[in-house]
Order: sequence, then structure tokens, then C-alpha cells
Amino acid sequence: MHNNDSEQYIFGLRAVIEAIEAGKSIDKLLVKKDINGDLGRELLAAARDYGVPVQRVPVEKLNRITRRNHQGAVAMLAAVDYYGVADVVPQLYDDGINPLVVVLDGITDVRNFGAIARTCECAGVSTIVIPERNSVGVTADAVKTSAGALNYLPVCRERNLVKAVKYLRDSGFKIVGAAGESSVNFTTADYTGPVALVLGAEDTGISPEIMKLCDTRVAIPEFGHISSLNVSVAGGIMIYEVVRQRIADGQTAG
Amino acid sequence: MHNNDSEQYIFGLRAVIEAIEAGKSIDKLLVKKDINGDLGRELLAAARDYGVPVQRVPVEKLNRITRRNHQGAVAMLAAVDYYGVADVVPQLYDDGINPLVVVLDGITDVRNFGAIARTCECAGVSTIVIPERNSVGVTADAVKTSAGALNYLPVCRERNLVKAVKYLRDSGFKIVGAAGESSVNFTTADYTGPVALVLGAEDTGISPEIMKLCDTRVAIPEFGHISSLNVSVAGGIMIYEVVRQRIADGQTAG
Repeated sequence: MHNNDSEQYIFGLRAVIEAIEAGKSIDKLLVKKDINGDLGRELLAAARDYGVPVQRVPVEKLNRITRRNHQGAVAMLAAVDYYGVADVVPQLYDDGINPLVVVLDGITDVRNFGAIARTCECAGVSTIVIPERNSVGVTADAVKTSAGALNYLPVCRERNLVKAVKYLRDSGFKIVGAAGESSVNFTTADYTGPVALVLGAEDTGISPEIMKLCDTRVAIPEFGHISSLNVSVAGGIMIYEVVRQRIADGQTAG
Repeated sequence: MHNNDSEQYIFGLRAVIEAIEAGKSIDKLLVKKDINGDLGRELLAAARDYGVPVQRVPVEKLNRITRRNHQGAVAMLAAVDYYGVADVVPQLYDDGINPLVVVLDGITDVRNFGAIARTCECAGVSTIVIPERNSVGVTADAVKTSAGALNYLPVCRERNLVKAVKYLRDSGFKIVGAAGESSVNFTTADYTGPVALVLGAEDTGISPEIMKLCDTRVAIPEFGHISSLNVSVAGGIMIYEVVRQRIADGQTAG
């Protein structure tokens, strides 16, 4: 599925069901609003079973994607394969890596996502975790704005981000939330052990359920008149503070 | 001249000459290729005397900007007033500020410029220095992508960037160049005194003449497969290392 030239898709009820059951990385499944019939129901059941996000759209939207006989179903393929934290994290520990994981809680701007992914790849971040819903996905555009970083950096996509963060915490990660309102300077936290850095949505920040799971809430000090740093710049600053502390601690990059 | 709704301009030979001589901040002067006559020559002389960048363009380009009688001359006004380092720096010292100045050597992408300005304003940077040529200017677009930061942060525009950097060095600044090829980790340099941080063009880096003036050349360590960090993210990381060191040193923000 590595492809950054154009968005790819599969259409037709039977073809999409087969793609889902074959475990293809699907960014989202578009179905016509009034989808029906045995195969229609089978498709929705498969999407549910395999955790594929479904979006109901007017049939005209599907007609704009393809003029061929889509039968009311078009699956937009992800530009890369998605992973799950429960697969990636044990492997990191097995490989003797001191992991740094970046969790994106509701980042919807593809430029910010691409920029964060680019920084993560440069900094040696182990993986990015995103939720299925209310989030950008690894589209061809995202791969492009990441300067190709998303071809190298594994991305975990989780149906339940709260569960994924709990899993990280149970696996020995310190959960650090970037919270603009915190009075704790981000440089005072200790990042030398396994860290999951949570960055929130540009407008609303980290969701309350995820914020509750954070062991530490930190902020980048600001001295100006305007509201705040761009999330991709803030992410870069925090990620490289982790790198700085680990180098100062005598660790080599993972 | 504070205006971020639309690009502003002045047209007509006499009107533009008067604007230049009145010291208005002009981003660039567009003149038709075959400009001539006494007033035409007077205009070009005024532009030279006042350091206004001149660009010769086909008359059709001027016609697209305004349908009124431009007489072959349109001055694009800057969205803010420009300063000079020789005016700004003594004032900073008089105010008891430990200055951090960011020098942009040939940044041409308006998004990167806006993003860097936004970070500078948040971090309490004293001023940004840009050259007249081969550089973005403070256009309405730049103000917008800076999230308004350019309405607060003074920008020095210098005809001769080499001279400006020399002036900073003679004024007690440590000149620190961001040089991807350097083996010096940026966190090992000392930023507790007056610092001018030089960021180079996205493609070619810092120009050789400016690089020679740098007291220290530093790099952000990278561990990935892709080429490098985005310049606005790299700038953010380095600027906040300066902030970190100054806070650790017991200094308060300027």
C-alpha cells in the first residue's frame, strides 16, 4: 500500500468486503446514505468487526470519486499500513529500545500532522498513535507534507485512544500531556524513561478522558501577546527536550 | 501601516516618490520595464537612496494590480513598519534586556516565515532581522500566517545583511549559525548572553559570508531516514533551548 502519488480506493460491495476481511489498511469507508440489501448489511458488519470507520454520504459524492459501478460503497485506502500499539510496543522492548511515543489526540489539520510526523522521524520517535475518529489519517497528502517521513515512521491507529493510552501506561510509559494551562515548565519533567507525549487538538486541546490518564501535565512557557505556539512547533520543541535529556543521560538514539 | 486585511499599494510616479521620501515602509517597488523620463529617473534615484527594492516587470503586471493610471510605478506597502538593527539594539540594551535576535538569511517561504515569527513572539525574541533581497517581507499573508505575531514583533530589514550581522557581533552578540552539517549539538552551546541565532534558506542554508561571521555553528541531531527538519520547527527547537538555558540561569524573560 505504499503509494504517495494519488489517493487509492476500492469500490463495489463484494470487493470492499473482501478488502476489509483481507486486513487492508482502510482510511475510511464511504457508503451511500440508504445502503441496503444483504451485501450492504454484510459490508457494514465487516466494517464494524474490523474497526473500519464508516461515513454515510450522498450518492453524488461517490459518483464524483468514480464513474464506475460502485454499488454505493467506496473504501479509501490508507497510504501506509496501520499498526496497533499492542503489536508495536512489545517489539520495541524486545529490541532494547527506550521508547518515545507521540499520541495525537484529535489533530485534524493534515499540514500539522505531516510536520509532526517529519519531526518524529528525524528525532527517532518510535511510533505515532492516532485515533480512528476525529483525526487525520495517513493519506497521500499527509505523506507528502511529512516529506516522506510517513513512509518510515510506523503509525498506530486505535479505535479507542483511551484504551491505547491506558495500555501504554500499563506498559511502563510515563504519560505526559501538553497542556497550555499547566504551570509546570516542560523542561522540568523527567523524560529519560519510556515516554508517551500526548499532543491535543489545535482548538480544544487534549480530551478530558485522556488528560486524566496523564502522569504529568506540562506547558511550554510563553511570553508574548498572541495566544500560543503552533502545535507542530510545540511538538518539535517538546520532542527535542526528550532527546536532549536522553543524550545528557548518556543514552544513544533508538 | 498596520493592516492585515489586504495588500496595500501606492501608484503613480509622483505619489510613489513622495511615499519613499516620507519614509513609508515599502516592501518592493514595481516599475514597468522601459520606465523613462525625468520623473522615472527621479523615482529610481529615490528608491536607491532610501534602499527600496526595485523589480522591473511587464506593464501588464501593473495593469493587473490597478486599472487606474499607475504611470508605470506601483509601490507595494509593507504590512508593518520596518526597523534597522542599529535603532533597535541600543534601545534593547537601554531597557536592560538580554536580547535574543533571530536572523533569517534568505527564507523565501511565507508560511515558514510566519511560523517562525509566531514562535519568536511567543518566546520573547527581541526582533527578527531579514535582508531586503531574496527574502520574504512582512506582507499581509505573512502577518496572517504568523497568527498576528508580526503586529507585535519588530522586524528589522537590512539592505546589507552581512553588515547587520557584523554590527550585532560588534554589539556583544554571540552569532550562532544553524548549520545542518555541524557536528556540534545545539544544546552544548551557551546562550545565556546576548545571542543572534541565524537560520538559513530552506535549500541552500546560511550564505558563506554570514557563516564566516558565526562564532558557533550548531546542528540539531537527527536520527532518521529523511533529510532534515522543517526550518520553522528547527527554529522553534533552537529558540526554546535559549529560553531553557536562560530560565535555568535564573533570568526572567525580556
